[in-house]
Formats: sequence, structure tokens, C-alpha cells
Amino acid sequence: MAVPPSTHPRRLLPVFLGLFQGALLLFFALFVTYDEASAQAEDNNLVANQVYSTFPFFQDIQVMLVVGLGLLLTFLPHYGFSALTHNFLLLNFSMQWALVLQGLLHLFHHGQIHLDLHKLLVSEFAAVTVLISVGAILGRASPCQLLLMATCEIPIYLASEWVIVTCLGVLDVGGTITIHVFSCYFGLGVSKALFRATQQPAHPKETPTPRSDLMSLVGTLILWVFWPSFVAVLCQPGDAQHRAILNTLLAMSASAMTTVVASSLLERDGKLSPGHLQNGSLAGGVAIGVVADMPMPPVAALALGSLSAVVCVLGFRFLTPLLGRKLTLHDQCGIHNLHGLPGILGAAASVVAVLLASQDTSGSHSSQPFPAGGNASEVLEGQWAGRGGSGQALCQAAGLAVAVGASLLAGLLTGAALRLPCLARPPERLCFDDSLYFRIQDQAESPGPDGSAEEGALALKE
Amino acid sequence: MAVPPSTHPRRLLPVFLGLFQGALLLFFALFVTYDEASAQAEDNNLVANQVYSTFPFFQDIQVMLVVGLGLLLTFLPHYGFSALTHNFLLLNFSMQWALVLQGLLHLFHHGQIHLDLHKLLVSEFAAVTVLISVGAILGRASPCQLLLMATCEIPIYLASEWVIVTCLGVLDVGGTITIHVFSCYFGLGVSKALFRATQQPAHPKETPTPRSDLMSLVGTLILWVFWPSFVAVLCQPGDAQHRAILNTLLAMSASAMTTVVASSLLERDGKLSPGHLQNGSLAGGVAIGVVADMPMPPVAALALGSLSAVVCVLGFRFLTPLLGRKLTLHDQCGIHNLHGLPGILGAAASVVAVLLASQDTSGSHSSQPFPAGGNASEVLEGQWAGRGGSGQALCQAAGLAVAVGASLLAGLLTGAALRLPCLARPPERLCFDDSLYFRIQDQAESPGPDGSAEEGALALKE
Amino acid sequence: MAVPPSTHPRRLLPVFLGLFQGALLLFFALFVTYDEASAQAEDNNLVANQVYSTFPFFQDIQVMLVVGLGLLLTFLPHYGFSALTHNFLLLNFSMQWALVLQGLLHLFHHGQIHLDLHKLLVSEFAAVTVLISVGAILGRASPCQLLLMATCEIPIYLASEWVIVTCLGVLDVGGTITIHVFSCYFGLGVSKALFRATQQPAHPKETPTPRSDLMSLVGTLILWVFWPSFVAVLCQPGDAQHRAILNTLLAMSASAMTTVVASSLLERDGKLSPGHLQNGSLAGGVAIGVVADMPMPPVAALALGSLSAVVCVLGFRFLTPLLGRKLTLHDQCGIHNLHGLPGILGAAASVVAVLLASQDTSGSHSSQPFPAGGNASEVLEGQWAGRGGSGQALCQAAGLAVAVGASLLAGLLTGAALRLPCLARPPERLCFDDSLYFRIQDQAESPGPDGSAEEGALALKE
Repeated sequence: MAVPPSTHPRRLLPVFLGLFQGALLLFFALFVTYDEASAQAEDNNLVANQVYSTFPFFQDIQVMLVVGLGLLLTFLPHYGFSALTHNFLLLNFSMQWALVLQGLLHLFHHGQIHLDLHKLLVSEFAAVTVLISVGAILGRASPCQLLLMATCEIPIYLASEWVIVTCLGVLDVGGTITIHVFSCYFGLGVSKALFRATQQPAHPKETPTPRSDLMSLVGTLILWVFWPSFVAVLCQPGDAQHRAILNTLLAMSASAMTTVVASSLLERDGKLSPGHLQNGSLAGGVAIGVVADMPMPPVAALALGSLSAVVCVLGFRFLTPLLGRKLTLHDQCGIHNLHGLPGILGAAASVVAVLLASQDTSGSHSSQPFPAGGNASEVLEGQWAGRGGSGQALCQAAGLAVAVGASLLAGLLTGAALRLPCLARPPERLCFDDSLYFRIQDQAESPGPDGSAEEGALALKE
Repeated sequence: MAVPPSTHPRRLLPVFLGLFQGALLLFFALFVTYDEASAQAEDNNLVANQVYSTFPFFQDIQVMLVVGLGLLLTFLPHYGFSALTHNFLLLNFSMQWALVLQGLLHLFHHGQIHLDLHKLLVSEFAAVTVLISVGAILGRASPCQLLLMATCEIPIYLASEWVIVTCLGVLDVGGTITIHVFSCYFGLGVSKALFRATQQPAHPKETPTPRSDLMSLVGTLILWVFWPSFVAVLCQPGDAQHRAILNTLLAMSASAMTTVVASSLLERDGKLSPGHLQNGSLAGGVAIGVVADMPMPPVAALALGSLSAVVCVLGFRFLTPLLGRKLTLHDQCGIHNLHGLPGILGAAASVVAVLLASQDTSGSHSSQPFPAGGNASEVLEGQWAGRGGSGQALCQAAGLAVAVGASLLAGLLTGAALRLPCLARPPERLCFDDSLYFRIQDQAESPGPDGSAEEGALALKE
Repeated sequence: MAVPPSTHPRRLLPVFLGLFQGALLLFFALFVTYDEASAQAEDNNLVANQVYSTFPFFQDIQVMLVVGLGLLLTFLPHYGFSALTHNFLLLNFSMQWALVLQGLLHLFHHGQIHLDLHKLLVSEFAAVTVLISVGAILGRASPCQLLLMATCEIPIYLASEWVIVTCLGVLDVGGTITIHVFSCYFGLGVSKALFRATQQPAHPKETPTPRSDLMSLVGTLILWVFWPSFVAVLCQPGDAQHRAILNTLLAMSASAMTTVVASSLLERDGKLSPGHLQNGSLAGGVAIGVVADMPMPPVAALALGSLSAVVCVLGFRFLTPLLGRKLTLHDQCGIHNLHGLPGILGAAASVVAVLLASQDTSGSHSSQPFPAGGNASEVLEGQWAGRGGSGQALCQAAGLAVAVGASLLAGLLTGAALRLPCLARPPERLCFDDSLYFRIQDQAESPGPDGSAEEGALALKE
């Protein structure tokens, strides 16, 4: 495994990132401009209103991804700085990379790319998939591996999103299928191909401390608070957006409560598990995304939130250990429980909601020619024009199938690529430790003199 | 005290919460819908504008309650995870419970409940009372006790708020009287009835560490930053809201400065006390709520902020120990100093402001028939139509009396109910410790082998 | 150095702050009112719209300054509580002081001061200069010294801002020159005059721990997320504000990426330095402020962000040690690398942008009489009416010169004043320690018995 000093693994990172930044500058210089045609005062007011209606949502989402998600990942007590930094780095890299890829698509049609806040927002959504997928292999992968994973995942996400939303016409305003389900199975595929059949032993630095659990919970709470902005930002302003906000609030509130119930019932001594709380409270937000703006009664949002929290906690308690034993599938942060299972639940709920809404509309058509309260269903029906309710329900299911299938396959291929020796996966002994990638003096809790020696040897040999 | 295993105290929590969630689902299924009658584009624009004008305030308040208040309570070094989780759980439970109770009231009048963001906001305000009251008994009560307390407090709050605001016509836009004063004396009543005459000894885990003090201060700062949103969210848009924001900013700024002065003067060696800073900086926000949108000069906001900080710090230094000694009244977080005293101060200020404003208006009426700058007083006068300035001042005082009296009485009764053995108040030795309710491994700072043994014995015996 | 007990240094703080609060109350009582002339419903709508368009930005900036900047300064492991509190105290003091000084100026012209959100915002911007300058002497100065520094810096800032923006007509929407460059060189001047030629030895409590580095990084991320609000809040609504937001987002994203590249290349073993990450990620935001709303292609924002990150990391690696050795210049937080160098870079970029824009406009005038996309340049040209592009470029350079020169000179004078013995600079042994100013029990990590003894001796002797 000896590589010459010039290609030392830690050296690969700046080279790769530097080249990417150079290419990005070139691409922007050649093709990207601002849209500055709004000379009229009216247009200017329009832009101002767009800024005021989108920017607060955008900032909320930034807080979620940079601070909330980052802190959520700091539950590994010796890996907090790495988790926060890698999350931040991957967000920026993936957003820029998505901006380039989207720009290229646009370029073929229009010859020029006009940058605006909406395009940045869509790129940010693409980047979210990477941040979720990373959870499967957190702490056991090198930064170079994570960057390569992001490089592969973004184009596959854009393609799958195009198939699901544009071709199949799937309704998914909060990204439940396109983002959460996709990124979960992509991450699991990567993890499977990267670690293969080797069971990952419990690492002494893997166990959260009270302090790291507290920081992680703060991250959860930040995500919990701002989740409605994530779901509602791309909704139609007005009723649909209002409904999406309310549905998300209800689902998240039900999730938080039900997580306590489920976790407390499942543990033998009735104590709550911090991991359940950190994840289960958010499960409702994952599930509600796909139906948030659909016409459904508020009780459906509550029920979906409760159910997804139950599924999430059950997943942590039974499914993750089972998958670990039977399939030697390693899922460090339990992304399958937070993003996979609730996402599938949400997709199933959207099938039901679409079917019920179509019956509702056809029913209201026959019985009352000028319905007073059924217009939301009609608006929805407008979105699947010519397809019919059952057709749309089929599309939702097909979208889910595409998301799971494409992401698993692509994840497995990407994971195989991550095994390239030059990407320098850290040896097991040095995993979960900030001091491998950062100049951090962890005197009190250092891996001891032999640890440093091994690391030194690694640096020399590799 | 031996209870059969089937009713083990930790088992009561999921049962109670589970039943509540079930009832909530049923209630929502039967009665709650969204208001979806806005088929016209105009109505849709109206809804959109309401969302854009309320939602940012709503999110600010969510951050305050979930993250800010949660972190403020983490000053107990071994109880941070519990404080954060209990705060989060109680917020969700109380909000849902308030939603149900408000819905029931609405149901009798309209036969159906239309959910919207404003109703959620009002329920959130009701939940705040619980989060404040908990401060009096933090660390020494079981989650079941806290939930029972919330169950009792929410209906009493709704009733008292109806008496104070609707019947008496008290002006209290920021909830100084209805929320802060009410919840403070409710909490003190609970504490008195729960602990009775037993002096609570200083617990070794009660002393904050530098780290827990730092986290708590971060919580204070988050509350401090977003407080203007809390006060101004229910104001009339325009001048009144603008004035409420400015008054709150001035009062909070004066509070922060004066806290440093007062704390530094009171301590013998001139060192600042973290507890004073964490609470005194917020006292101005508590006091200003009741007068924030009234027509008064900016200097009044500054003076009120300073005065309430002085009162808060003096309370911590002299009143809390005195109450502890003379009345054996236990107030863990000092809520009497942060919510009680500044709240009473604010109520007194509102009496003065109303009296001055009424003189001002009658004066301006006689001297200048078309006043240029006196319209705010006139708007205010419109709010107490037919009652006159001194009548309104009387109402403000009566509102304060109702809030103090009703809450103390109800709190004492609630506290007596919390003594039910099945609610499992933790024994003194196991108080202030996360590991009693959470699967947290506090190896370095565990209560020692005998501590665990005692806990095990508790689990077996109870 | 023996001072009588009555003037013990810790006693000076409350006396000074108390007198200031009293004077502030008097000033507000005499001269400050709210503008309440908006009796018409139209005016009221206008005020409401102003609140909705400014207040979210204002809140974002408050979070940045109170929470983000405060946490960024907690990298000193035993000084976190002090850093957070001093930052908070100085923000409030400086804002109030700026409000008074601006009010006095206004008073001469209008006879009365109408307070509004915009005036508070401008005072907040003035306070930022103090918070930045403090970084140069953090941990080695007493609170009294910091307050005296703020007292001197605010009027000098207001004067320099008046010269730069009003007299010279410098375009600087994000405060790159007026705030960042000014406060950096002011702080360095203070540091030089305060510590003179004595080399500050490395202090054992100066070294960050993994935990304090993590908290500091959270502060960086909060600043990073909300920076666009800081730059764009004072922009013209519409296109200019939209462009400012996008440019800032691009520059900050490029900064974050390039910091990783630069830090990784510069360190011998390829490990990233936490300090580089904490500062370099923000360098782009400092540099972009002066050009954020100018008509320039997006690639310029990316390039400026990358370049400023490189300059910042290089500064930390080479310039700060060099300045320490050659000029015995002490810069605790490296403000020269985060605010000085990127600020100068931004100013240089604004010269280039102005020159290019003027060529662009004159070019577009001749070639196409009704340009479709060149209007932004024309708008910009309107701002330097009658001066011409090269004239404006000269003004930008002159503004930079004024900012550097005036701040250095004023900083040196202020630093000399801070050497007054009554201000009680802590002796080297007691620096970087919370327990000198706060009642914090740092048992595990106390300076030891002799440390406390020394502190006691200090308290007695001084």
C-alpha cells in the first residue's frame, strides 16, 4: 500500500479541491451572469418581493444544514470538529458542483446561465443528498473519499430527480422521495460496497458522552425548528404554502411526542435513548414532505408524524442490528431509520392521499356542482391533468421505486470506487478521531503514545 | 412506597403520553380542518401576505422556546440533557393540549375548527407558561409530574387569560401579566405544595460548572436576541408593531448593562455572578411586554429595562434566600426574580402609562384640535372606549391581582396533586442527574457504584 | 501600583457603567421621541412594510453579533464566559453610545431625535467596529480598558465614516472599508500602544482545547450563514440587494473551500488548522462587502472570495508571527488576517470594479444606444454623478487610506490611554481566566492554590 510521498493521501485533498475551484472559476467566467434586465421600477419591485418572500426561508435552510445538521453529527465525542467541518465542506462543494451541472444543462438550451437565488436554492437541495448519505459511513472515511462520493452523487441525484419529477410527474414538494429516500439508499449502497462483508467492530471512540449527546440534541432541535421552512420554501405562495407549514409543524410535534413513547416502551428499564430522541423527533418532517401541500385533513399530518416516529425508533432498535448481522450493512448514524423508513412511509401516504383526493373531487363534482371547500383538491387535480387520480398514484409509487433502485445501484458502484487505495481510508484504530485530520491537541483524551506512533508510521509508509 | 412492576413510574410516562396522542388524533379527526375556502386569487394573496408577515416571527419564537430556553436550563451540569428534553417535550405536549382546549371552546360556537398559523401561535403562548413554571422545580421532579403539571396549568391559564384580557380588557400585548406573572406564581405555588416545609439542602450536582454556565449563557443570548419577536408578533402591524420592537430592544439593552452594574456592586469582591447575567439580561423583556405598544417616550423603555434588571438581581441576592429561609419556598431557577418581580414592575408601569396617556389625550384635545403627533394616544384610547383612562388603569391593576391570586391558588392545588406516589418523584440522591431518565453513560462523573446500586434498588422496589 | 480600596479596579466598572446609564436616560428623556406622525392608514402600511423588509435582516445581524461572534471568541478554553459576556456588554454599550453621538449630530440640525429601526441598525454597525478591535487584545485587557476603548473608538468611527462615505463619496455597502479595515487597524494600534515593545510570551491557557475549538467553529458557522444579511441590509431593495446577497453567498462559499486548500497545503503534515478554518471561511464576506452591489460578473465574487481566503491563511501562517517578531505587535485573534488583509483586498477590488464598470458603460453608450443588460452599470454611474469612473476609483483608494491612517493613529492614542493604572490590566499570570472577573468555580482546571493566592494579593494590593 506504499504510495510515494508526493501523492500522500492528505495531499490529495488540496490538489483535488484546488483543481475544482479553478475549473469552477473558469466555468463561471465563461458562462454565468446575473439577470440584470429589470430596468423598470415594476420589475425591481417584483425582484424585491421575491427576495423578501424567499430569502428568510433560504436563511432558515442554511442554518439547518450548516449548524443544525453539523451539530447533530457531533455525537461522536472525539470526532465533533471533523463532523462539523466535513459537513460544511461537503455542503459547499456539492452546492458548487450542482450549480455547474445544472448550469451545463441550462447552457444547451439557452446559451447562457442567469444566476439567481432560486438556482442557488435548488443546488442547496442537491447538496442535502450528500450530507445525508455521508451519515452511513461517518467517521470511517477520509475527506477524499467523501468528496469523491459527492462528485458521483450529485449528477446521479440530478438525473434521478429529473426522471422522478419531470418525466413521471411525481408530486414531492418537500423532497421526501427525491432527496431523503434517494440519499438514504445511496449512502447504504456506498457503505455496503466500501466495507463489504467485514463486520465493523464497536470502536471505543464511537460511544457518545453526555456532552456530545447534548450538542447533538441541540443540532436536532435546530433542525426541528426550521424544518417547516425546508418543506414549504418551494410551495406555491398562499394556501398551499400555509398548509405545508401547518402540516409540517403538526407532523414534527407528533413525532417528538411519539418518539418519547416508543423509546420509553422499547427500552427494558424505561429510560429514553438519546439516539432515538435525536432522530425520531425529525422523522415526521421526513415523511410529511411529499404530502405537505396536498389537500388532506390535519389529522393525517399528525398520524403520519406519529407513525414515522414509531417506525424510526423500531428501526433503531431492531432493523439496524439485524441488517448489521445479516447483511453486514454498516449504518453509522442510522440514516435508514431517519430518512429511509419514514421516506417510504411518506411515499405510501402520498399514494393514499392522491387516491382519496381524486375520489373526493369526482364525488364533489357529481353531488355539488359549486363546492365550497373542495377547491384544493381541484387545484391538485390540475397538477396531474389528464392522468387521473389512480394514474398519479401509480406515478408516486413508480417514483419511489426509481429512487430506491437507482440510488442503491449507483451507491454500490460509487462505494466500489471509494476503495481506491489512493483515497486513504483511515485504518480502524485511527477512526473517529479529530486529530487525524486536524491540528487539535487532545492531550487528556489522546489515543496514547502508541496511537501517535501508529499514525506517524501511517504517514511515513503510505 | 412499593408499587407493582406493572405501574413502575417510568412506565407511566409512555402510557400517559400514548393515550394523550390517541385522544388528540381522535379529536383532530372529528373536528379539525384547514380553512380552504380561498379559491379567489385575491384571497390567496392575502394568505400569502399573512404567512410572510407572521411566519418569521413564529420561527423566531420557536427558536427562543426550543433552543434558547432549553439551553438556559442546562446550567445544571449533570442535568443538561434532561432539561433540554423535558423543555422540548413539555412544549409539544402543552401546545397540543392548548390546541385541543381552545378548539373545544371554538367548537361550541362554530361547530368546526379551522386550524391556522395564528391558532398555533396562541397555543404556543399558552405552552410558554408551563415552560416558565417548570423552572421552580427543575431537577427535582419526574417527567410524569411535569406532564401532570402541564395538564393542570394549560386550562387554568386559558381561563385566567380569558378573564384578564376579554373580561377585564387588560392591555398586555407581550404577555407580561397573562404569561410571565401568571406562570411564575403558579410555579411557586406548585413548588410550595410539592416540597412543603422541607428545606431543600444544597445538592452536590446543583453547582454549575464553567462549561454548563457557558451553555446556559448561550441560551440567554438566543432568548435576548429574539425577544422582540415574542413581544411584537401579536401587535397591530405598522406603527404599534414598530414601537413594540424598538421599546423591547431598548429595554433589553438597558437590562443587559444594568445587570452588570448591579451584580458587580452587590458581590463583595466585585466579580460578576453568572446567574445574574443569565437572568438579569432578560428582565427588561419581561417587564416591557405589557407597555411595549403603548404611546410612551423611549426613555420609559430604557428606565423600565434598567429598573427590572436591578429588581431581578436584588431578588437573586436577597429575596430568594429569604423566601427559602422564612417560607421554605424552593425556586430552583429563580423564576420569581426573572418573571415575577419584573412582571409586577411592568404591570405597575402599565398603570402609570395608561394614566399619563389619558391625561395626554384629554390635554391635547383641549389645546389642539388636530394634533400632529398625539394620534397614538388616541388609538390607545380607542382600545378602552367608554372606560376612561383611570378606569383602564384600574383594570390593569385588577388583571395583575387576578393573575397572582388565581395562579398561586391553582399552583398550590396542582402541587398537592403532584405528591401522588405513583408519579415517582426521584429521591434526593438521584436528583439533578441525566442518567435517571436517559441511557447516558456518565463514566467520569457517575454517582459512583453505590449511586447506581441505589438507583437499581429504587427501580426494583418502587 | 497600590490604589486605595475605594477605587479598587473591579469597582470602577459599575461606577463607569452606572454613570453612563444615568446620562443615557437623561439624554433620552430630553431629546428622543418616536416618530408617531403616521395617522393615515397608508403611512401605517408603509411602516409595516419597512418593518417586514428590515426586521428579519436586523435579527440576523443580532444573531451574528451576539451569538456568532461571541462563540467565535470562545476558542480560549478558560476564557469563554468572559469572551461571550464582554462581547455582549460591549455591543450594548457601544450601540447606546453611538445612538447618543448620532443623536447629538442630528439634534443640531433638527432640534429633536426621532428613533427608528434604521437608526438602531446604524448604531449597531458602529458597535461592530469595537467588537472587531477587541480581538487584538482579547484576554489580556480588563473590562474597564475595553469600555474606555469603546468610548474612544465610536466617535472616531463616526467621524471617519462621515469623511469616507459622505465627503469622499466612497461606495461601501457592506462596510469593508469603513468597518472592517478601520476597526482592524484601530485594534492593532491599541495593541501596539498598550503592550509596547514587550513580547507577549505564550500563555499556558492560550492553547485551544478540542472542545473550545468546536464551540468557536460553531460561532464561525453562525457568522457564515448570516453574513449575507449583514452585507445586504442597507442595499437598495430589488436588483441591487438580490445581487449583494448572491455575491456574498458565492464569495463565502469560495472562501470556505479555498481555506481548506490553503491550510492543508501550508501545514507540513497536511492537517488542517482549526484557526485557519474559523477565520478563513469568513474572509470572503469581509472582502465582498465593498463591491457586493456593484455590477460585476459572478465569477468576480468567487475569485475575490478565494483570494481573500488565501490571503487570510497566509497571514496567519507567515505575517502574524513576523509582525510579532519584528514589530512586537500582538494580535490575539488574528484580526489583521480576517479583517485587515481581506478588507484591503476588497478595497482594491472596488477600484478595479469601478474602473471596469465605467469603461463598460461608456462602451455600451457608443455601441448600443438602448442597451438591454447594461442598466446596472448606469445605475452605478448615477451614484458617482459628475465624478467619472476614474474619479470614483480614486475616491475608493482615498477612502482606504483614510481608514487605515486615521484608525492607526487613533488606535495608538487610545492604547496609550489604556495604560492608565486605574484601569487595572490583569497581570500576565491571571490572563485568559474567567475566574478573575466571574464567580465561576473552575475546580478541575483552577490555576492552583498559588494562583488564587496571587489573585488575592492583587485584590489586596491594587
